[in-house]
Amino acid sequence: MVTDAQQACFEAGIKFGSLYHQFAGTPVSPDSAPSLERAMAEAIENQPFCASVSVDIDADALAEATDDHGYVELTGRFIEVEMRIEYEGVVVRTAMEMEDGYPLMRLVGVE
Amino acid sequence: MVTDAQQACFEAGIKFGSLYHQFAGTPVSPDSAPSLERAMAEAIENQPFCASVSVDIDADALAEATDDHGYVELTGRFIEVEMRIEYEGVVVRTAMEMEDGYPLMRLVGVE
Amino acid sequence: MVTDAQQACFEAGIKFGSLYHQFAGTPVSPDSAPSLERAMAEAIENQPFCASVSVDIDADALAEATDDHGYVELTGRFIEVEMRIEYEGVVVRTAMEMEDGYPLMRLVGVE
Amino acid sequence: MVTDAQQACFEAGIKFGSLYHQFAGTPVSPDSAPSLERAMAEAIENQPFCASVSVDIDADALAEATDDHGYVELTGRFIEVEMRIEYEGVVVRTAMEMEDGYPLMRLVGVE
Repeated sequence: MVTDAQQACFEAGIKFGSLYHQFAGTPVSPDSAPSLERAMAEAIENQPFCASVSVDIDADALAEATDDHGYVELTGRFIEVEMRIEYEGVVVRTAMEMEDGYPLMRLVGVE
Repeated sequence: MVTDAQQACFEAGIKFGSLYHQFAGTPVSPDSAPSLERAMAEAIENQPFCASVSVDIDADALAEATDDHGYVELTGRFIEVEMRIEYEGVVVRTAMEMEDGYPLMRLVGVE
Repeated sequence: MVTDAQQACFEAGIKFGSLYHQFAGTPVSPDSAPSLERAMAEAIENQPFCASVSVDIDADALAEATDDHGYVELTGRFIEVEMRIEYEGVVVRTAMEMEDGYPLMRLVGVE
Repeated sequence: MVTDAQQACFEAGIKFGSLYHQFAGTPVSPDSAPSLERAMAEAIENQPFCASVSVDIDADALAEATDDHGYVELTGRFIEVEMRIEYEGVVVRTAMEMEDGYPLMRLVGVE
């Protein structure tokens, strides 16, 4: 037996793993960050039960880390993500933030 | 409030999204399928709470689909996946299979 | 010995392989195609010697192919790409287009 | 006009960009490195004109970098790659190595 809330949490996890592993490694600079933020959010919002996604690329961290070539490859240390998943009346809110140097994906609420 | 079972399902979803979007698009042929199956499974087993992963690339479907160049890009229609996630005593079993031409990721059991 | 023209062609190839394998598999719909086009172009323009990139996602092909979920995963059949690489005075123009059902990356000119 | 040598260099670049952006971000540990090395090499060898690929994941660098979770995400700092491309009688040898902290893809020889 799987409850609707469990299924909703499973769906939320799929979206996070998808977002991260689709876009990790993308060349990104302070100038190109806004178009990447938007494309990441809109791409994942296509997936089933995904009500909304916001992606924030940390421009300061990016500016500090860019190498001589003026860009870096996207990793979790540069992004904060919030998502809202809706499945059969269950609303799941999730977030990804850095914690102890590790990009932690977590369930914020299941309602 | 988030229960351990919900968290376990969230973790299971992360692994599925990761596996799919990390490896979709990989050039694969009947000859290279075994090494890719193994690498996919071992890569995702590195992730937290991931007890076991098995990946089966459908050699027949692959052989039929390979183009003049002798290979295709990996998509969900060629793979079946089973995973076992263990989180705080909760065991989640998941599977990905084709259903109506769409690669469906699903929760098989939460115990 | 490697000539500047050969190096320029090598650089052009890197950009094509990068663009394709970074973004293949991204969920895309007619609505989200414009943001993805722009993010793909701006991401690759970050790379060294890459003067300009244009990405065109074929909205008609996309609309036809979208499944019940309203989106597809990006593959070469949906995109046309043009790039201009400049290396030590050599200008390389490249394009990706469908040819016999296969997304062909080709050198258009080396000057 | 494009020469065979230029085309061969373009093909070589495509393979490097493909390899890097397909697999960057893959979870990897000292234990799973061998299966990933092999899958990366065999995947890219499927591509046209690609005679051979060798991938070496630096086990020491990996062991040092693994976090509390026992793995890292693959980036250029952990891998060395050699490839041999053959196109219409032209042989191109290429390599990727770290140089000043940046994973440099380069043409070793065109013959």
